[in-house]
Amino acid sequence: MKHISRPEIDALEKVYKLNLINSCSGYKSANLIGTISDNGLENVAIFSSVIHMGSSPPLLGFVTRLNEKPKDTFSNIKASGFYTINHISSDIIDQAHQTAANYNSEVSEFEKTGLNPIYKDGFVAPFVAESPLQIAMKLVEEVHIKRNNTILVLGEIQAIYVKEDMLQIDGYLDLSLGHVTSINGVDGYSLPKPLERFEYARPK
Amino acid sequence: MKHISRPEIDALEKVYKLNLINSCSGYKSANLIGTISDNGLENVAIFSSVIHMGSSPPLLGFVTRLNEKPKDTFSNIKASGFYTINHISSDIIDQAHQTAANYNSEVSEFEKTGLNPIYKDGFVAPFVAESPLQIAMKLVEEVHIKRNNTILVLGEIQAIYVKEDMLQIDGYLDLSLGHVTSINGVDGYSLPKPLERFEYARPK
Repeated sequence: MKHISRPEIDALEKVYKLNLINSCSGYKSANLIGTISDNGLENVAIFSSVIHMGSSPPLLGFVTRLNEKPKDTFSNIKASGFYTINHISSDIIDQAHQTAANYNSEVSEFEKTGLNPIYKDGFVAPFVAESPLQIAMKLVEEVHIKRNNTILVLGEIQAIYVKEDMLQIDGYLDLSLGHVTSINGVDGYSLPKPLERFEYARPK
Repeated sequence: MKHISRPEIDALEKVYKLNLINSCSGYKSANLIGTISDNGLENVAIFSSVIHMGSSPPLLGFVTRLNEKPKDTFSNIKASGFYTINHISSDIIDQAHQTAANYNSEVSEFEKTGLNPIYKDGFVAPFVAESPLQIAMKLVEEVHIKRNNTILVLGEIQAIYVKEDMLQIDGYLDLSLGHVTSINGVDGYSLPKPLERFEYARPK
């Protein structure tokens, strides 16, 4: 196996290091976060840091940096208190990736990428119409990670919208039936194929 | 689309809710965390919450609960200050899943599952020999998430060991070349296939 020591990592060129460290944590979720500003400007941006934090209450988190792009997402969330998390299916990876471009705040990434905002049941933030799994979120806590000046944004699920056939009889959402993708590193999009579901593990 | 409202979520039966909320966040990383106790007892446990937190310094996080299984992992990490993160390839998903069984503390999951511990370059915690991507970690911070009494465990990468062919010329680790898996929900193992790597997104 190739051994890369910490001093070697610290000495790496910036983009090489970004690729290496972003891909070493494993496959990441692929999501579009939809928000709206005080002035009614819509925003959508790609994130690969959405994680499950707990089921009761239903809590999801994502990691962001202050003063770095995508800069509008977090300020909109703080202003309105609400946002949407939308999964990226394989047929929209081009548009989803393009939302990462550094557009000005007054530009809607929806317009620029051709993704379509959709509003549901009076919820303030826009969902991504093309997404097979859409989640309405309410901000509940910002956790400041001092070590590297990042924010873990915690939100509670307000509602879930999912393509009917993805929902299984035991509550499991089969992401593969929505062609939901996963991200390897900064820029590698993958489509997972189901291998196996296991029963609850017991000592043997 | 199927609409599941928050009151409906709150009223769900426990296992149904666990399946739904665990799968709605998207694909998760599939890792085995290796630790050793003060008394030299080895432990290995599966986690699907490892995330990338930043590249400089190279920082990874994972989420755990206090007083819940896998209970030995976190207490060993606190005692020794070190642990390993090992990726789960498709040929060891059975053994990896079995590490989630509630064995007594004096039992080594390595022995019970047939996974093999391996020690490298004087690092105190055991790696999983069968893993194609192994990371030596040092505990740097515990972040208490009050909302649901969980802990985000932050660690800095001390070294990376990776199957030679996975490392690409720009630092990107192609996880698919190690047959690295991803987890859907609590118990669904998937094998991602690469679709595309995109260039840095610029406004157009």
